[in-house]
Amino acid sequence: MIRAPSGFSFLSTQAGFRYTGRKDLGLILSQVPAAAAGVFTTNRFQAAPVLVSKEHLQTINWARALLVNAGQANACTGEDGLQVCRRTCELTARAFGLRPEEILPASTGVIGQGMDLSAWERGVTALAGNTDGNDPLGVARSMLTTDTFPKILWREVPLAGGTVRFLGLAKGSGMICPHMATMLAFICSDVRLQPETWQEMIAQGAEKSFNRISVDGDTSTNDCLLGLANGHTGVSPEDSELPVLDRELTELCRELAYLIVQDAEGGTKVVRIRVSGARDTSQAEAAARTVAHSPLVKTAMFGRDPNWGRIVAALGRCGAEYEPSRVRVSIAGREVFAGGTPVAADIDSLLAPYLARQEIPVAICLGQGPGEYELLTSDLSVDYVRINAEYRS
Amino acid sequence: MIRAPSGFSFLSTQAGFRYTGRKDLGLILSQVPAAAAGVFTTNRFQAAPVLVSKEHLQTINWARALLVNAGQANACTGEDGLQVCRRTCELTARAFGLRPEEILPASTGVIGQGMDLSAWERGVTALAGNTDGNDPLGVARSMLTTDTFPKILWREVPLAGGTVRFLGLAKGSGMICPHMATMLAFICSDVRLQPETWQEMIAQGAEKSFNRISVDGDTSTNDCLLGLANGHTGVSPEDSELPVLDRELTELCRELAYLIVQDAEGGTKVVRIRVSGARDTSQAEAAARTVAHSPLVKTAMFGRDPNWGRIVAALGRCGAEYEPSRVRVSIAGREVFAGGTPVAADIDSLLAPYLARQEIPVAICLGQGPGEYELLTSDLSVDYVRINAEYRS
Repeated sequence: MIRAPSGFSFLSTQAGFRYTGRKDLGLILSQVPAAAAGVFTTNRFQAAPVLVSKEHLQTINWARALLVNAGQANACTGEDGLQVCRRTCELTARAFGLRPEEILPASTGVIGQGMDLSAWERGVTALAGNTDGNDPLGVARSMLTTDTFPKILWREVPLAGGTVRFLGLAKGSGMICPHMATMLAFICSDVRLQPETWQEMIAQGAEKSFNRISVDGDTSTNDCLLGLANGHTGVSPEDSELPVLDRELTELCRELAYLIVQDAEGGTKVVRIRVSGARDTSQAEAAARTVAHSPLVKTAMFGRDPNWGRIVAALGRCGAEYEPSRVRVSIAGREVFAGGTPVAADIDSLLAPYLARQEIPVAICLGQGPGEYELLTSDLSVDYVRINAEYRS
Repeated sequence: MIRAPSGFSFLSTQAGFRYTGRKDLGLILSQVPAAAAGVFTTNRFQAAPVLVSKEHLQTINWARALLVNAGQANACTGEDGLQVCRRTCELTARAFGLRPEEILPASTGVIGQGMDLSAWERGVTALAGNTDGNDPLGVARSMLTTDTFPKILWREVPLAGGTVRFLGLAKGSGMICPHMATMLAFICSDVRLQPETWQEMIAQGAEKSFNRISVDGDTSTNDCLLGLANGHTGVSPEDSELPVLDRELTELCRELAYLIVQDAEGGTKVVRIRVSGARDTSQAEAAARTVAHSPLVKTAMFGRDPNWGRIVAALGRCGAEYEPSRVRVSIAGREVFAGGTPVAADIDSLLAPYLARQEIPVAICLGQGPGEYELLTSDLSVDYVRINAEYRS
């Protein structure tokens, strides 16, 4: 049983935006105003719901609801798209007795398609008539696009004043390369926190989790991580307990982010790229991202081929400073390249059983300094191409 | 009939480095010392033949031969690889009565595998015994890896002093994203030029052709463009004729580069991305490269889907400065996105016949300044993934 935080309702329905026979509209409703936090895409083309959610968070940093639809991204839809997004907040506010600015909207789906307002009207009416408000899995399902499974996780944190809970929901799959931001993800909690503290926790959680994954290097126009902490338990953490809460929230974000990479479009593997020995963190990040985005590295992983030459070739163009002869590369814990040459001629057969596993660790040491970075990525499979060549048809 | 420049022999044979039943060793031999020029990969991990060719060009800028093998890249092979590469030059020099430094070697194939010196000895002996020195197509075939056709082009340029010829040979297919350098390509000419002039022409030709294509964003460790101008015609261009020669050489390079993109691993389309209205050239280039490397854009092209939302999303993360509302995007000459919104709802069906074509022009105007850049790229197909998941097995 999903252990959801107290004081929240989870509603979902089939509005029929794009998909048939499945839920595509979800609402997470707090019984009381909740500390609200958000981290948003840095893509220059920001979707209407991203702009509206940012606007609402700037107006008030307490919110009552997260509203999500799948099938239409409402991105690159101009002033019309903004009006439609505001209208969906108004419809929902009226149906649930809220103010529009207490609602944080999020959308996912095809870029550029207009939103179907009549589907919204029917959908919101159905949500309001929904008497079972205890179905977080329904909401997690309503936000999926090409995802193959819903992503929902929870944690209980015992504090001095009592136990509080976190619930996380996410969708991912494609166009995944969050950059100081994230894809669609929601975190609910019944802990009592000031909005500023909550915002800081959410932002730090995103930086250490969603911002460190990449499926295809494409940063979406709709990425956002939204958080509501409604304080329904009445439990406020003591100052000494904040690091515990931080750690639990970050772990939850990391697990959600892992699920997104695990469910990457067509993905068969999770590749964990750890770069160390870089001059600084940003050079370590550059090296990790260049390797993670190399189509040749990604297809080799799909082919279960420990083709380290492609990793080295990617490092060679990453822009980080290092001495090539000091670079070391390990796959699945076995060093394959060091001192400018292969470590052993027969490493391929030794590595074969490890390459058959679902998670492949790749460790790179640049031998230059203290900079480190870790990034999760997926492989590039025949199915990724099929899914994305056919997604709109 | 291939109209090769005079004073060159073209020899090739089956040495059996990796492939069976096909040529994999080629030699282009000038009867007299030729002005020699080279442009090389900027990858930090440079293959042994790249290092040796650079060394030889630094020693003397006149050369007698270009030596190429396919199947073993001799990259990331350390000091051993360098010794082996020098030894192949010595073997060839002895067989043909040259000095080793008059030979410019180039290799393509799998990174990290050692070179088979006994195959080299047999191969060079076979080359030397080859009496038909008039087979440039054989050399073009001997340098292929996953390429599906040989790439060879020629041009005749009538100058005041007589007619001179250019011959270009190239290989491409995968790990193609030349950066201030190029993949394997050779240009021979019988024009008489000083090495400095020839080097400048070759470098400019590369910049406007090979450096403006990308298959997968992966810059190879072995990229090089080598040029020999042997002056065998005795024709020196007058100063006023240099721009003509420049233009002809650049056009030849562009056509060769186009063939490489046309023969991209698994590629079904050539996508011509033109960015204008950027603040400067480097921002235009950043925008073009971000769009060209987006797996989502590339799979949409493969799927014949005018999914401009993916182009816009890629622009949104390219780092160039612009006002989103002033960005315009056209596909196949039809504007699809402007003023922050789609131009028309039914554009997809209008574009369908154009998306079925082999070359797809994508024009992007950022509305910010005079910066322009053009880049050729391929689509991302199911076969690209298959080829690269299976390349080593």
